[in-house]
Amino acid sequence: MSTTTSTMESPVISDIKAAIRTIPDYPKPGIMFRDITTLLGDTRAFRRTVDELVNPYAGSKVDKIAGIEARGFIVGGAMAHQLSAGFVPIRKKGKLPHQVVSVAYALEYGSDEIEIHADALVAGERVVLVDDLIATGGTATAAVELLRKLGADVVACCFIVDLPELGGAERLRGLGVEVRSLVAFEGH
Amino acid sequence: MSTTTSTMESPVISDIKAAIRTIPDYPKPGIMFRDITTLLGDTRAFRRTVDELVNPYAGSKVDKIAGIEARGFIVGGAMAHQLSAGFVPIRKKGKLPHQVVSVAYALEYGSDEIEIHADALVAGERVVLVDDLIATGGTATAAVELLRKLGADVVACCFIVDLPELGGAERLRGLGVEVRSLVAFEGH
Repeated sequence: MSTTTSTMESPVISDIKAAIRTIPDYPKPGIMFRDITTLLGDTRAFRRTVDELVNPYAGSKVDKIAGIEARGFIVGGAMAHQLSAGFVPIRKKGKLPHQVVSVAYALEYGSDEIEIHADALVAGERVVLVDDLIATGGTATAAVELLRKLGADVVACCFIVDLPELGGAERLRGLGVEVRSLVAFEGH
Repeated sequence: MSTTTSTMESPVISDIKAAIRTIPDYPKPGIMFRDITTLLGDTRAFRRTVDELVNPYAGSKVDKIAGIEARGFIVGGAMAHQLSAGFVPIRKKGKLPHQVVSVAYALEYGSDEIEIHADALVAGERVVLVDDLIATGGTATAAVELLRKLGADVVACCFIVDLPELGGAERLRGLGVEVRSLVAFEGH
């Protein structure tokens, strides 16, 4: 006799999860890559994803959505429009044309750097950070640091996908930031 | 006595144009870089930009918005959500995880390649292509070619900014595609 575990997943969230494609052994053997392009291309799933991400902020004031290059731009642009907020791009080093603030972060091998325009927001503005997926949280942690350097009130970090085994969401919560994700996948 | 030229620009379009920052001599001397990050960060200007871009399609069926990496993702994500369409990313070589179709195009020095997932759309689907700016049109022309390789009906190519002196919009029209842009700047 087997025991069924109740997941408490709503039908909407199940639909969103089902629209994500898993590509085994990409970009290297042993990695299960969670590909959101199938979700983006699915009219209903994309619409629901954006709606689920913005719903918690429908009644509150959000000044800016900050999106992390490049997949965070897609859902972030839709969120900003839907919430009547501005959009702030957080980009890889050397991509922004005006004066920037930078933060370096460690990768598995070596390090990387992300940047934001120094005048992208005004101190005290309420900002929601968004990316498609949180794994170890290196980039998102650096992004929160960038936003705080400019004096932002980081209201929350939002992701479509969380890979909880990699601990990124917990790491972000350790910075005192609310973290929200729509679906979780075991493994990485 | 001076003569005033009537521009016929609506107040909405004037506001959008005024929200774009010009950075002289970037990325090299003699180039006037049109920086849309100031527009994206301006709540009202960003909202109006998306609304102006989607308005012509409010009554018609659009299956997919195809956005060109990376700035085309921001406004493209918002357009897709607003039109209840799916979103298709067109990316630089090596960024998409599944089977792709590629097109190479010439740069000032050398060449580059863009890609789309081979299963990103179904033949006959109505697609609107979007990027932030059209200059010589090299990337956009390659993107139209990519979409047509998959059998897409390319309804239009939309841009926030056109640099008409560089001839990109004319080049695209030569492919039999409708081209729309919100604002134009002289010079390049």
